[in-house]
Amino acid sequence: MRVPFQQLHDTLRGVLENRGMQPPRADLCARLFAETSRDGVYSHGLNRFPRFIRMIDLGVIDVSAEAACVAAHRAIERWDGHRGPGNLNAYACMDRAIALAREYGVGCVALSNTNHWMRGGTYGWQAADAGAIGICWTNTLANLPPWGAPEPRVGNNPLIIAIPRPAGHIVLDMAMSQFSVGALSQYAARGEALPVAGGYDEHGELSRDAAAIERTRRLLPIGFWKGSGLALALDAVAAVLSGGRATVDISPIPERESDLSQVFIAIDVSQTAEPAAASALLDAIIAFTQQPSVDSVRVRYPGERTLETRRRNMQEGIPVDEEIWRQVVAMAG
Amino acid sequence: MRVPFQQLHDTLRGVLENRGMQPPRADLCARLFAETSRDGVYSHGLNRFPRFIRMIDLGVIDVSAEAACVAAHRAIERWDGHRGPGNLNAYACMDRAIALAREYGVGCVALSNTNHWMRGGTYGWQAADAGAIGICWTNTLANLPPWGAPEPRVGNNPLIIAIPRPAGHIVLDMAMSQFSVGALSQYAARGEALPVAGGYDEHGELSRDAAAIERTRRLLPIGFWKGSGLALALDAVAAVLSGGRATVDISPIPERESDLSQVFIAIDVSQTAEPAAASALLDAIIAFTQQPSVDSVRVRYPGERTLETRRRNMQEGIPVDEEIWRQVVAMAG
Repeated sequence: MRVPFQQLHDTLRGVLENRGMQPPRADLCARLFAETSRDGVYSHGLNRFPRFIRMIDLGVIDVSAEAACVAAHRAIERWDGHRGPGNLNAYACMDRAIALAREYGVGCVALSNTNHWMRGGTYGWQAADAGAIGICWTNTLANLPPWGAPEPRVGNNPLIIAIPRPAGHIVLDMAMSQFSVGALSQYAARGEALPVAGGYDEHGELSRDAAAIERTRRLLPIGFWKGSGLALALDAVAAVLSGGRATVDISPIPERESDLSQVFIAIDVSQTAEPAAASALLDAIIAFTQQPSVDSVRVRYPGERTLETRRRNMQEGIPVDEEIWRQVVAMAG
Repeated sequence: MRVPFQQLHDTLRGVLENRGMQPPRADLCARLFAETSRDGVYSHGLNRFPRFIRMIDLGVIDVSAEAACVAAHRAIERWDGHRGPGNLNAYACMDRAIALAREYGVGCVALSNTNHWMRGGTYGWQAADAGAIGICWTNTLANLPPWGAPEPRVGNNPLIIAIPRPAGHIVLDMAMSQFSVGALSQYAARGEALPVAGGYDEHGELSRDAAAIERTRRLLPIGFWKGSGLALALDAVAAVLSGGRATVDISPIPERESDLSQVFIAIDVSQTAEPAAASALLDAIIAFTQQPSVDSVRVRYPGERTLETRRRNMQEGIPVDEEIWRQVVAMAG
């Protein structure tokens, strides 16, 4: 089943207004969820929305709380998210980082006490749409075992790097595990083997069996020790700069996951790069990587598939899980 | 065979002065090479030095050229490396990024027309020693096949993230391939299997056979499609910000590798974080990840092994390859 973008946006906004969110904030919050489904990241769009509402109902997310600047020194600022809606907080901080970049060339905003930002790529697209390079990441609860450890002790912290490009932004949005928990569930439900090893089975062996990895919770960090180290470094920078919590201090219960720390860096490309030259350069980089390819596999640049999905979903409507959609429509009613 | 740090430093400085490098620059350049061996990154210390000298003799590296600022807008600057010695250029740019961070809270320097910076971690340690968070990366020649491609079309671009910590800085220094070319050679020479798959063999299968991967040159990016995308994004940001070359335009001949682009970001932690709180937080992050471990494997934080090696090599002398050492001593004579 597919629903038009506008209908999805309106429905989500209605639910948020019912929960007491002020209309302009409900509009933006709903739009960011709807755009996430529109762009094909279904796990963090509509499908995630019911959990977001439960977190509001549990009091973990405060619909009225707004992020605010608590310390500033020219191009760097520290913001407190006050446990407000994670996507609104993150959007406000990337917006501020972009404004700082316009003034100083580069800007950095570190955010504490915030909630899950949903799709990290959202803030990369936001920066690139504004003509800025955007680099951002979040920490999260301990949901990934560091290399050599049996238990989750680092966060599966996504890193986003976005570069504005007239023909389509380059937007990398990558978490530290080879497969997300959501992807594992989908493979397990289909009974399909992962294309490459995604974690460890009960015998401590690397495995392509998604169900086995779900049981052990031992997801594989990308690059083994490398992804593990990168996750730790991102957590450390986010917590130190924001003055907020590190993964070690974040509740391990997903529906209580709160008090996250995030970093938003924006760089104003127009201060240094001549736009036409930058655009031609990015086109050349992409063309170079895309040929020759092996057999029918075409090398894609980060963000390419997102644009394809976005175009199709805007034309044909956004695919929704009927049960979840029915549930959300009822909440709006 | 081991030689004392000071002797290594003095010998390398002598060779550089013989090549016409001015004494203060020769001293710093030699120190950075010697410190790289001291810290256990032998491939980019003394062992790399003869190739560095050949590149000087070939005219690829200009010993007298200095990096200079060509455009500035407050916290962001664009520098031209003028094909000078890569480690001196990178050191000067991180130094400038740190100064910008002191003034603006965050600073960014993008460098074009530079040569190989040798060990990337050097500039992370430099920032952390100055009390700043350092984030930097370089592009390089096309030496890594993107995910799905048979030929090298992205650079094995290292990314460095350093966080100052009184008990030992956290310094992540990771290239985009699962194993470096140097590591593959060592495994191949010992006839030892890689601990995990490191690339593809002649049949297009993932392999732990280092010699087979050396033959195909199809090294595996960390996280398959993820490391491939990260390499492309880092290249794009470096080339756009510096106005220099992207991997597509860099000579594929290693001894002609020049005109690289790099980015140096420094963040002055003292502007936002209370030092004692930051230190305690970093200690807590590390302690959390280090237990419980599996069997005898201890989870190490990025930078931990470097400090251990540094202490041992300063006490016992720095291990050198006798043939290379003999060759370099002769150049100094």
